[in-house]
Amino acid sequence: MVAGTTVDLRSDTVTKPTESMRAAMANAEVDDDVLTYDPTAFRLEAEMAKITGKEAALFVPSGTMGNLISVLVHCDVRGSEVILGDNSHIHIYENGGISTIGGVHPRTVKNNPDGTMDIDLIEAAIRDPRGELVYPTTKLICLENSQANCGGRCLSVEYTDRVGEIAKKNGLKLHIDGARIFNASVALGVPVHRLVEAADSVSVCLSKGLGAPVGSIVVGSKSFINKARRLRKTLGGGMRQIGILCAAALVALQENVAKLEADHKKAKMFAEGLNQIKGLKVDVNKVETNIVYFDIVEGSKIKAETLCKNLEEHGVLLMRESSSRIRIVLHHQISTSDVQYTLSCFQQALTGVQEENGI
Amino acid sequence: MVAGTTVDLRSDTVTKPTESMRAAMANAEVDDDVLTYDPTAFRLEAEMAKITGKEAALFVPSGTMGNLISVLVHCDVRGSEVILGDNSHIHIYENGGISTIGGVHPRTVKNNPDGTMDIDLIEAAIRDPRGELVYPTTKLICLENSQANCGGRCLSVEYTDRVGEIAKKNGLKLHIDGARIFNASVALGVPVHRLVEAADSVSVCLSKGLGAPVGSIVVGSKSFINKARRLRKTLGGGMRQIGILCAAALVALQENVAKLEADHKKAKMFAEGLNQIKGLKVDVNKVETNIVYFDIVEGSKIKAETLCKNLEEHGVLLMRESSSRIRIVLHHQISTSDVQYTLSCFQQALTGVQEENGI
Amino acid sequence: MVAGTTVDLRSDTVTKPTESMRAAMANAEVDDDVLTYDPTAFRLEAEMAKITGKEAALFVPSGTMGNLISVLVHCDVRGSEVILGDNSHIHIYENGGISTIGGVHPRTVKNNPDGTMDIDLIEAAIRDPRGELVYPTTKLICLENSQANCGGRCLSVEYTDRVGEIAKKNGLKLHIDGARIFNASVALGVPVHRLVEAADSVSVCLSKGLGAPVGSIVVGSKSFINKARRLRKTLGGGMRQIGILCAAALVALQENVAKLEADHKKAKMFAEGLNQIKGLKVDVNKVETNIVYFDIVEGSKIKAETLCKNLEEHGVLLMRESSSRIRIVLHHQISTSDVQYTLSCFQQALTGVQEENGI
Amino acid sequence: MVAGTTVDLRSDTVTKPTESMRAAMANAEVDDDVLTYDPTAFRLEAEMAKITGKEAALFVPSGTMGNLISVLVHCDVRGSEVILGDNSHIHIYENGGISTIGGVHPRTVKNNPDGTMDIDLIEAAIRDPRGELVYPTTKLICLENSQANCGGRCLSVEYTDRVGEIAKKNGLKLHIDGARIFNASVALGVPVHRLVEAADSVSVCLSKGLGAPVGSIVVGSKSFINKARRLRKTLGGGMRQIGILCAAALVALQENVAKLEADHKKAKMFAEGLNQIKGLKVDVNKVETNIVYFDIVEGSKIKAETLCKNLEEHGVLLMRESSSRIRIVLHHQISTSDVQYTLSCFQQALTGVQEENGI
Repeated sequence: MVAGTTVDLRSDTVTKPTESMRAAMANAEVDDDVLTYDPTAFRLEAEMAKITGKEAALFVPSGTMGNLISVLVHCDVRGSEVILGDNSHIHIYENGGISTIGGVHPRTVKNNPDGTMDIDLIEAAIRDPRGELVYPTTKLICLENSQANCGGRCLSVEYTDRVGEIAKKNGLKLHIDGARIFNASVALGVPVHRLVEAADSVSVCLSKGLGAPVGSIVVGSKSFINKARRLRKTLGGGMRQIGILCAAALVALQENVAKLEADHKKAKMFAEGLNQIKGLKVDVNKVETNIVYFDIVEGSKIKAETLCKNLEEHGVLLMRESSSRIRIVLHHQISTSDVQYTLSCFQQALTGVQEENGI
Repeated sequence: MVAGTTVDLRSDTVTKPTESMRAAMANAEVDDDVLTYDPTAFRLEAEMAKITGKEAALFVPSGTMGNLISVLVHCDVRGSEVILGDNSHIHIYENGGISTIGGVHPRTVKNNPDGTMDIDLIEAAIRDPRGELVYPTTKLICLENSQANCGGRCLSVEYTDRVGEIAKKNGLKLHIDGARIFNASVALGVPVHRLVEAADSVSVCLSKGLGAPVGSIVVGSKSFINKARRLRKTLGGGMRQIGILCAAALVALQENVAKLEADHKKAKMFAEGLNQIKGLKVDVNKVETNIVYFDIVEGSKIKAETLCKNLEEHGVLLMRESSSRIRIVLHHQISTSDVQYTLSCFQQALTGVQEENGI
Repeated sequence: MVAGTTVDLRSDTVTKPTESMRAAMANAEVDDDVLTYDPTAFRLEAEMAKITGKEAALFVPSGTMGNLISVLVHCDVRGSEVILGDNSHIHIYENGGISTIGGVHPRTVKNNPDGTMDIDLIEAAIRDPRGELVYPTTKLICLENSQANCGGRCLSVEYTDRVGEIAKKNGLKLHIDGARIFNASVALGVPVHRLVEAADSVSVCLSKGLGAPVGSIVVGSKSFINKARRLRKTLGGGMRQIGILCAAALVALQENVAKLEADHKKAKMFAEGLNQIKGLKVDVNKVETNIVYFDIVEGSKIKAETLCKNLEEHGVLLMRESSSRIRIVLHHQISTSDVQYTLSCFQQALTGVQEENGI
Repeated sequence: MVAGTTVDLRSDTVTKPTESMRAAMANAEVDDDVLTYDPTAFRLEAEMAKITGKEAALFVPSGTMGNLISVLVHCDVRGSEVILGDNSHIHIYENGGISTIGGVHPRTVKNNPDGTMDIDLIEAAIRDPRGELVYPTTKLICLENSQANCGGRCLSVEYTDRVGEIAKKNGLKLHIDGARIFNASVALGVPVHRLVEAADSVSVCLSKGLGAPVGSIVVGSKSFINKARRLRKTLGGGMRQIGILCAAALVALQENVAKLEADHKKAKMFAEGLNQIKGLKVDVNKVETNIVYFDIVEGSKIKAETLCKNLEEHGVLLMRESSSRIRIVLHHQISTSDVQYTLSCFQQALTGVQEENGI
């Protein structure tokens, strides 16, 4: 690791566009995507519809907008309720937008450490329509795959199908926040379209592991996408010559999906290395994709904040989750030597501390 | 129990106005409470402000409106979040109105069987203002005392004060859904004003245990009540000659608070009697006020639905909570002989069943 | 006019319940209108459905809630727009609740002095569904009959039917704010049901000219009323033993409709008398019901504020609309001698002024 | 005009990025603009803050989001009202988002043909705070400069300052929808910062006349921009490596502002040429910037729809406004020979018609 350079492990959103993306952007065929359709957006949307096995797709500026639009389209009638994980990205990290902007009432179900919600708890959370005088109307169930806040754990096809059955039986829709659905697909060895077969809509991030500079895609039926297109305009997400951004995303699909497996290996390598360092611990078996949450062992005097600052001084950027928990996310622009370097920085930081601790 | 009459145990909202209330209504001094102030409303509001130890009070058509107004006044800025119990009345039984009408994002904390939420879970649910780019802003904590869905359990002064301290320390407001705060006050032997001392606002129901025909009161600071008055108008809760209703409520305060202790005794008596009946069970120690939740023992063939129908045929109305759980609520128009009669109906209904069950 | 008594001409909402109403309230048969149905509410709702020629009816706490519920039920899908008069009560005097609480976008059309909106302007305001990418969806047209802010002018059957045709042709609903529809019915000599035949919903005030202490009624199809009942609960307008209030309203229907014609005559008498007073003017021909807007002639030194204060000192309460315009509203508790007394107060107040003015 | 090519006059949003923009995008320095700040976005925002004379700036995906964020930040408290033109872009073409997403109540004032609203009508529309029981709270006035729907007419410094004074006097904010503020600046010969001096916020479009592929900028105080940044995230407008788009916008500022004067001349040329064609008419004096609305003369048999289709067959795209009105918008990728070609197409189309008309 050369002095001055940075190992940015805060998120997989920090990747820079590759040379081939930059070339694609410079040469993209474009048009006004609001008035007509941008031809490159059109190509990207068709490709994503195909990959996810859905009728239609729509480019949106961000994963947050992808989820917001999806929830609001399914919950278009005043008085709607959505069932979602109490540790889901939509519930925790999206400003409560589904309520504060969309007026949708969230009903949370406890997320297990593996990202699932118990099936019987989901069923119990569905409102009895006979109680509609005092209940909101359950309209939607949301899953997240892989589940970021649960350490990038993946939901299986079986689990997703089971939730899909419950949704269908109760006349509900199923949305999957698939910000990192490609990571789940690679980790599980299941094609994306099979993983989301039970879903009525999916949002997929292009600017996380896939490494495109900007954007997400929502997919669903033609009717869903028509409503999504209108809502995208209402929210201010209708943009003009987006072929620029979509060209980079098409390169990402072509070149970067193949790199995800390596990201997962680097995550395992990082976790295993970390477990060798006294004072830190992580459950390696639970590292399924490109995210690693690890903890400072109890009784240690060091705080996550101090550790993050210490590593920042060595050019390593981390995300602090709590006073004793830190998150790192791998991506294709982190090399195995970056991982080694980061581990050595931790080793060094902890050694000093352990001496302080008198270990 | 004379044939044809009814023992309505569904809720304490079913009471009929007493003769003294009817007389008070017939003679009430009234005026247009929107344009000026209705003098009887004025008297009632002053009385309730005094009882609760707050600066000001406002008559509203229902407890639901009282809670809705309180939450919305405290969360008047777009992007607000409220912390409340996952089993609270506001979250479960008020149509999700704080979101679907008010755009407020709810963050639920698990309600313990005694109606409390763990203090550390409340603290953990408060959003870190440094994360405001992705978080909504925590503005309010809601408690419910007594907690209906937890069987009418009471929150102690100590617990409430502790939550109040946390709210204050974090710059939050504290609202108490005090629909049955008089029941809690009587059960705990603590004056209402002391029970709600830590709260910035309280809604108090006049048409539950107190037996007034219509209405609730919200109390708080003068500034809070001014905003509440405006929001009441927006929601359509501004009414004209409400002195009629307030006159009945003043009688309720004068005559019916004293009857609550008897209601609690009848609830205990009912619970104890019920436990004598094979096939039904209830934890008598947890019956603190006028609400009794009881269960059909596991393995019984009888369903709550059947049992409720059976008793309805004998003129006893119950509230079914699930396939094996039933709720009854005592009030001043249920006599001890009504309780005895109800128990005998249960005995009879269960005996038949037990024979069917081969017991 | 005896010293100390008051002639309250601010609104027809200021009436006090009559003896027969008080007796009816004292003896009303009641029940919990949320859990079951209150029998007296049931009678009132049936009666109002019959009078308005609609399938079903619902008692609500206020006209504001009646309008809010009606607009929100018709505009239940996010992205809805309502066409209404720029001088209508809903747009001007209801806190903007349809937007601030309901998220409905208002599109105003200019109200003519007679309360109508030009038919071609209404048609032009309907959004072309082909432009839905950038337009909200027009769902509803609102009329007001009689139109308060236009001086209580009445909309004819022909006009209302014509707007109803336009609504139907465009797949829209028609709501009539009929706060004073009985006044319009009496003034036009047309039964209420005929006046609102084209409407999908109507809100009718019981506590204005009819003199009941509290409440309004909304009427419409059964399906509309079912949705209205649920939304009433959400807003906090679901009340318990409302038979008390409904009993008074039933008396109002029986006894007070017949008094409206006299109110209109008193309004005419007031207007004619006022025109005799130098410094004040009113177009008598435009006084169709119980509302009189009159103006201080241009060039006068007196301000409406001064005039209102002056009369208040003589026990006469008025509503100031602007610096040169005042509104009075007649009702059954204003006698012809009250009108005479009020005119004499004006005469006296203006005489002093005219001397000041050097007239 | 070579066969097969297109003259797209529907809007100035249809421009394609220039070679220099494509080069800038290919070489842009970028970073994650959500987690940290993208350096190129930072440069663009600083530049736009300077040009508009405001403290801070924020890149947003579209002009619609720029306006939505601005209105919602100024109207952050429930119950807010905004005064805006009845022909303004926000009111007509943005899906009613300020209400349907933001819960803000619009109060429209008639737009004069020159894009202004009468000062006294604005003042009359401001709600009296003493009526807050029934009124929403006026918080904001919106202007639009140049005013698209009024034919690209410009608001003068004097007018804008006058409205700014009224806003200040009444404690209101002033927002300018400056989608085409550079056009107004060039047409009036007044620097942008002077034109918006009275405004608390301005949204400026980069992808209209300036020709950048995507994006708008909002400017205002630091506190305003902080709130705008958070709301941008809530709406889903927070994007990652936006330096790509911002690099193109920086080129647009450097190279394309100078081209606006030529656009205005081409608009005049078009308008003058059009007036030479029998059957079409336009008031040349009112063509101030790059937009021309023109009409089919009364009595003509031809409809705007037919005319638009006819020209489309010759590769000329127009925007139909009504059955007799058409809009064209000039931009830097329309040459004077494109204008000549378009005029000749009109001449040809109309000649055939006039013969049909027997002229």
